[in-house]
Amino acid sequence: MAKKSSSPAVATRRRKAPPRLRSRPMLVRVGLLGLGTVGGGVAEILARHGKLIAERSGVELRLVRACVRHLGKQRDRAAARVPLTSEPSAVIAASDVDIVCELMGGIKPAQALIEAALAHGKPVVTANKAVLAHDGPRLFELAARHGTDIYFEAAVAGGLPIIRTLREGLAADRVNRIMGILNGTTNFILSRMEVGLPYLDALREAQTLGFAEADPTLDVSGRDAADKLAILLQLAFGLAVRPERLSTTGITELSPDNLRDAAELGYRIKLLAIGERAAKAGGVHASVRPCFVPARHPLSTVPGADNCVAVESDALGLTLYQGKGAGGLPTGSAVVSDLIEAARNWRAGIKGRGAAQLNRAGVRLLAPELARSSYYVRVLAADRPGVLASIARVLGEHGVSLATVLQRERSAKRAQPVPVVMLTHAASEGAMRNVMRALAKLPALHKRPQVLRILEEAPKSGD
Amino acid sequence: MAKKSSSPAVATRRRKAPPRLRSRPMLVRVGLLGLGTVGGGVAEILARHGKLIAERSGVELRLVRACVRHLGKQRDRAAARVPLTSEPSAVIAASDVDIVCELMGGIKPAQALIEAALAHGKPVVTANKAVLAHDGPRLFELAARHGTDIYFEAAVAGGLPIIRTLREGLAADRVNRIMGILNGTTNFILSRMEVGLPYLDALREAQTLGFAEADPTLDVSGRDAADKLAILLQLAFGLAVRPERLSTTGITELSPDNLRDAAELGYRIKLLAIGERAAKAGGVHASVRPCFVPARHPLSTVPGADNCVAVESDALGLTLYQGKGAGGLPTGSAVVSDLIEAARNWRAGIKGRGAAQLNRAGVRLLAPELARSSYYVRVLAADRPGVLASIARVLGEHGVSLATVLQRERSAKRAQPVPVVMLTHAASEGAMRNVMRALAKLPALHKRPQVLRILEEAPKSGD
Repeated sequence: MAKKSSSPAVATRRRKAPPRLRSRPMLVRVGLLGLGTVGGGVAEILARHGKLIAERSGVELRLVRACVRHLGKQRDRAAARVPLTSEPSAVIAASDVDIVCELMGGIKPAQALIEAALAHGKPVVTANKAVLAHDGPRLFELAARHGTDIYFEAAVAGGLPIIRTLREGLAADRVNRIMGILNGTTNFILSRMEVGLPYLDALREAQTLGFAEADPTLDVSGRDAADKLAILLQLAFGLAVRPERLSTTGITELSPDNLRDAAELGYRIKLLAIGERAAKAGGVHASVRPCFVPARHPLSTVPGADNCVAVESDALGLTLYQGKGAGGLPTGSAVVSDLIEAARNWRAGIKGRGAAQLNRAGVRLLAPELARSSYYVRVLAADRPGVLASIARVLGEHGVSLATVLQRERSAKRAQPVPVVMLTHAASEGAMRNVMRALAKLPALHKRPQVLRILEEAPKSGD
Repeated sequence: MAKKSSSPAVATRRRKAPPRLRSRPMLVRVGLLGLGTVGGGVAEILARHGKLIAERSGVELRLVRACVRHLGKQRDRAAARVPLTSEPSAVIAASDVDIVCELMGGIKPAQALIEAALAHGKPVVTANKAVLAHDGPRLFELAARHGTDIYFEAAVAGGLPIIRTLREGLAADRVNRIMGILNGTTNFILSRMEVGLPYLDALREAQTLGFAEADPTLDVSGRDAADKLAILLQLAFGLAVRPERLSTTGITELSPDNLRDAAELGYRIKLLAIGERAAKAGGVHASVRPCFVPARHPLSTVPGADNCVAVESDALGLTLYQGKGAGGLPTGSAVVSDLIEAARNWRAGIKGRGAAQLNRAGVRLLAPELARSSYYVRVLAADRPGVLASIARVLGEHGVSLATVLQRERSAKRAQPVPVVMLTHAASEGAMRNVMRALAKLPALHKRPQVLRILEEAPKSGD
């Protein structure tokens, strides 16, 4: 299209540097609630890049005050220069604070403080996934009622612009499925189990490297991912649902055997948060669980503690966003871009946009039993004739048919149980639950059977 | 964090559906220049999702008029319902057009029309990569001068929100390297050559499937990717450079042999557009060329005609965006999200933000000779003793050392030339050019040596 010959005049004009149209940046005063890892990251980014931000966005962000629990605590570099208070109202109600930035985490007292700030008509920027997951819709509504807005890019996968993309980039599109690796700790643990480490060893390594908390329950139980999924469901489908209602399975029951089975069959195991529109049923299926992901699917290659969100939508097809999910700088960077947007909207008088997210009727969470997929099943069975046939019969009685059977090792001694690995064709979750109950009653089976969902390449048509 | 027991009151309050705070959406009238594939996609998206967009964004977008070359041409579905004109001023100057959306493509007459619309103070949304690549900085400045703005998410990788991300998500970050697969046609052709198809057969297949134009020159020469890279360089580094100045190599010289070599050595070949900050040298290296990409790098697995952009930045580390780069719906979707943003900013009086992108001094394009990387070199040499030694000597004389040598086949007949494949350690592009010139003079070498850059995992430190 661009022919070199067509624009000599333009080339000449361009020789001089583009003129600088720099108007004075507008000052916007930010009050912080909390000055921990993320707050420190925000302070550091503003100290390092404040001038660049002012040039690019026309906004000068100034941290005027931070409310902290321990006034005397030693703080690093940029954070040490922020004036401190121990009184939340000195941030929320202060006339010299234009935007409130909540970075305390947890529900109490963070949620009440966010509500108070919104009630003062102040825009709130937060990284608080728990509050957003549990009460996002009510906060959107509260913000709209007081003519202000709430921003939360940092609440889900800090390093990825997934909230902004769902709110803006996909504003003109219809999301059919969203799938995420939303917890870096579990992704790291699974990647270590792939090379043969038992679960507990991999967890200990993650703790040593600082990826996992001393109490890793929220991560490994899948509940952290469920909180984030609840937020994504609000934006992607207009579905308001508390994370406790989402079918959630963690990674604590997995063993290296499962990961070896996956590799042998051309899959990898990832803890996936999935929300999927089931148009016929008029609702959305949503769950957090370890899944078999085909090795050729881009979600299967997400490394280490990274996060990744895959969105399938009408207009765009499959889109992927991958990067760091946590850490002071990635999360701080997401907070700062929210602060810039909040500042610009605040000065321009744009308000109350958040509430519009949920103005869509008729979307509901479907019962998990209705979800359909194919499954990986692993049982430990007595090594004698007829056992495989009896297992296959149980599946057949519940309408579940087998795609692949893998009987990996035959025991040297006849009496030892052997693992039997099966991949099924598509079946309903309800049917699979019945199969599991029936299998558990077979005398030839040792231990409880293990079942994992297999991720399909594309949404099932017409479901 | 979220304890179920801590919020029974909240849970009760949440039982009723969130209240609907629906205010009347604001009507924003859009005039189109061009109603081809992308324009048709825009019309279709607005017809299909207009109500949803109004609910979510508070903006009702109405296509009031489209300027087309052929008034009598048959048009599909939604496009057929847009009132037509053949007079550009009936769009640009019309008092009932609030936003001008340019979707004609090419520089003439699109650029003059964009300038006229900006001079009228109207926001412009465009998918025109050629105009933005060649004159983006001047258009930003023109927009700012007339108190308006220009939006161009659709100009680069339509299905990915890369422009929005660089403008907003990374507004508080510092980009060190940006690498993109920005041309779907060449990515498709390379993926077919990987299974052994010669270049021309793969090109013909791409044409049959509609991925490649009848005249594929812009794609296969790398010039389409160079246009897009020029736009990304403006946003990522504040570097204003015309695409003709970017070192650009296409895929026309590649053979299945090169792709086989890559596979054997643990790489894949991708046409990469790369911009990389070289802090010490005070500038940016930028080029479009086929590269060896390590098989474990996420850019190596981008399939078919997809696009992918990888950004390495201070705060976020490596972030990836992957999806469809072209097509009426992906590109149309990007245009519509720009229309929504333009409409909201226009009504709120936010203006002239674009010009700020370039308010950064001192960034310049560095001479390609200074860039350093390791290289893949393939020569066809006479199969006799001492030839490899003479090749190695030439490299050594120019300070280039070898990491790997692969002498794949020995010919049955001694007289036949054999391929010699080498991977070098890091060397400057200038040294490699000298090596190539010297190698071409060796009598034992048949044909011109082939050289491809090898992508490093991370930016070279201190460069």
